Amino acid sequence: MEKEIFLELLEKKEYKTIKNILDVMNAVDIAQSLSELEGADLALAFRLIPKDKAADTFAEMDNAEQAYLVEAFTEKELRKILDDLYMDDTVDILEELPANLVNRILSNVSVEKRNLINVLLNYPEDSAGSIMTTEYVKLRAQDTVKEALALIKKTGIHKETIYTCYVLHHRKILGIVSAKDLLTMDDSMTMEELMETEVISVHTHTDKEEVARLFSKYDFLAIPVLDDGERMVGIVTFDDAIDVMVDEATEDITKMAAIMPSENTYMDTSVLHHAKDRIPWLFVLMFSATITGIITLKYQNLFSQMPVLVSFMPMLMDTGGNCGSQSSTLMIRGIALDQIHFRDIFKVMFKEFRISLICGAVLGAANALRVYLMHQDLLLALVIGLSLLFTIIIAKLIGCTLPLLAKQIRLDPALMASPLITTLVDACSISIYFLFASRFLF
Amino acid sequence: MEKEIFLELLEKKEYKTIKNILDVMNAVDIAQSLSELEGADLALAFRLIPKDKAADTFAEMDNAEQAYLVEAFTEKELRKILDDLYMDDTVDILEELPANLVNRILSNVSVEKRNLINVLLNYPEDSAGSIMTTEYVKLRAQDTVKEALALIKKTGIHKETIYTCYVLHHRKILGIVSAKDLLTMDDSMTMEELMETEVISVHTHTDKEEVARLFSKYDFLAIPVLDDGERMVGIVTFDDAIDVMVDEATEDITKMAAIMPSENTYMDTSVLHHAKDRIPWLFVLMFSATITGIITLKYQNLFSQMPVLVSFMPMLMDTGGNCGSQSSTLMIRGIALDQIHFRDIFKVMFKEFRISLICGAVLGAANALRVYLMHQDLLLALVIGLSLLFTIIIAKLIGCTLPLLAKQIRLDPALMASPLITTLVDACSISIYFLFASRFLF
Repeated sequence: MEKEIFLELLEKKEYKTIKNILDVMNAVDIAQSLSELEGADLALAFRLIPKDKAADTFAEMDNAEQAYLVEAFTEKELRKILDDLYMDDTVDILEELPANLVNRILSNVSVEKRNLINVLLNYPEDSAGSIMTTEYVKLRAQDTVKEALALIKKTGIHKETIYTCYVLHHRKILGIVSAKDLLTMDDSMTMEELMETEVISVHTHTDKEEVARLFSKYDFLAIPVLDDGERMVGIVTFDDAIDVMVDEATEDITKMAAIMPSENTYMDTSVLHHAKDRIPWLFVLMFSATITGIITLKYQNLFSQMPVLVSFMPMLMDTGGNCGSQSSTLMIRGIALDQIHFRDIFKVMFKEFRISLICGAVLGAANALRVYLMHQDLLLALVIGLSLLFTIIIAKLIGCTLPLLAKQIRLDPALMASPLITTLVDACSISIYFLFASRFLF
Repeated sequence: MEKEIFLELLEKKEYKTIKNILDVMNAVDIAQSLSELEGADLALAFRLIPKDKAADTFAEMDNAEQAYLVEAFTEKELRKILDDLYMDDTVDILEELPANLVNRILSNVSVEKRNLINVLLNYPEDSAGSIMTTEYVKLRAQDTVKEALALIKKTGIHKETIYTCYVLHHRKILGIVSAKDLLTMDDSMTMEELMETEVISVHTHTDKEEVARLFSKYDFLAIPVLDDGERMVGIVTFDDAIDVMVDEATEDITKMAAIMPSENTYMDTSVLHHAKDRIPWLFVLMFSATITGIITLKYQNLFSQMPVLVSFMPMLMDTGGNCGSQSSTLMIRGIALDQIHFRDIFKVMFKEFRISLICGAVLGAANALRVYLMHQDLLLALVIGLSLLFTIIIAKLIGCTLPLLAKQIRLDPALMASPLITTLVDACSISIYFLFASRFLF
């Protein structure tokens, strides 16, 4: 719904109409519409949302709005929302709220739930524990399909997913049963007969990126999370895994462009914050380019005698940089998707070497020809062609090895590799170029 | 299972042991283990897979193995696999098989199924139609929960998902009912009472990237696909949407690094193919860098009189390039995630302008100071600092506008923007630099 229409309806007190509209909207879309409202309007509009969508809508709102609403809610309203929120969403919200509002929320939940929330809040930020929920369907091995269905009918409505059920014994997983099995198999079959025993699980401290990878590999709807004693403590559901996947891709892309990754969208980040995220790497890269500049000074008598040499520097440096980033980008993505590993390093280097020979030969020859046609100087053409060939070989070898090395010594390949690659490739290409030039042209 | 163990067990004819191992493995992992086998071993091992996992495993294998198996299968085996495969997987496989094997498969399915396959094969490659499946649960408005559950028990096992059911009338969607509702609501309730009527759907020709975005926005398990007459023809399930998301992110990352996107993984792509994917953009970029080089020639009398000027070129060009790619990367990702639109162009430009003022002032001042300390030449320091400031401003403005313009004229922002940005920024920074130098230093 458009903001103007919304505001007008609110002002005219057409609450019935607003209710009717909200009634046929998806919670995600309602949250988006409400994001245009402020203050009292927001609280008023929130109270018009159908009861069964209020918690879902609340979970989808941004932190500033959630904070405003928590303050505006009566105790009763707050308790209702907290009852309907899934545990993972509650924890997500608490992580971002100011302390006084966190206390307000914690004082409105049962002691049991408060203890659980405190445990969940303590998991490291990027761990499976931090994105898991504790609401899932627990079954016993001797339960029949009929009993399982009866249990789900009684308790299932409060579970984040009922489509994967867990057969437990003393909190250890014996197997999993899908709702599809329960819905299509004979009523008298037991969970023991039905369950799949090959269960893939993660631990509370497993990196959430690794969890997301398992989802995309196996197409799970949910994955069980175990504690250090191998006891089941929760599940991660596919919707959270999708969010992780999108965020991780964004983070890698941002890092490859030499920007500190940010939690917020472009529009929601302030100018100052944007500048802060960008300046550090610009500084590092500027400093490294300065080194390349200083190398050129060593050869200043070459280009003061033969100024045309300077005109090939942009081409050599840019092509070297592009070749290096082609290789490093493919490595970084391959590492992120678990397709390339450190053990492949020699295979990869040999492959990149052959690729660089082809690229180098084609580009080097084309350039040599162009230089010869423009300047009618065969030796100059040879120097440019050869410099380009060697630059490309070195760029591709540096580009493919550095991300793998970074990964091996537990540095972030995307963050550490790109700037270093630029520096090294630039310095190498300029050195090669002037070495060849001084050798053949003077 | 390791390849060596697998081969040894096969050779020793320990089929029972292999069966027992395969029995507790996930279909995805079985497919990965089999990918190490060749020829007759592959066919033999495939026949040891438990019947209920054979089709799933087949769908996960790579094209060469699928082709080998289709040739090796008896008619009966082939028919069994085809019966168990979901329609979207069948179509995926057919798209990649050689024509004679496609004919073998089509002659082994019913006329009805063959016609359906032919329709699905005809959808454009990147459309929702090309990734949808036609197996889903159809209900009627007057069905009760009890009747719906009975229907699912009878037919559900052959549906790719039973967790979202569709209430249809003359093939038009009236609403959707989740399996969670069916499992937790009263037996006598009708679909009409239960169903949600705010249904979000796509069309057969909707771009699959757009479909994936809807999944990540709304956390759907499945989304209905309509034909031009708004009749329901299939569903796209979340697992296919996840694949699309991962592929699209990889494609964007690849394009940003000036590589033609490829369907295969790094390791599976041949050296020649890698070279072919990389050379075109390297050529374009090399040509554009040559233009920058030619611009420098215009100013050769400057640096033959004052060679130190050359040593600042790498720093200016690299910093300009980095600033431009920081801005363009954030735009490209924002566009892909539907967070930035063409209508925001002036807001974005103003934001980038302010960011570039901060970045430019900080980096320019730092550089001017360094130059002054190294060369004790205030005018030179001023020229370098000012050139850097203006380069950064121009780089960021070009970096943010080009992707948005590309999107607006329906070009791919990732593919078209990056190379053009490098060219423009390089040419601008060199021109600014030498203009300032000739004005203030001579």
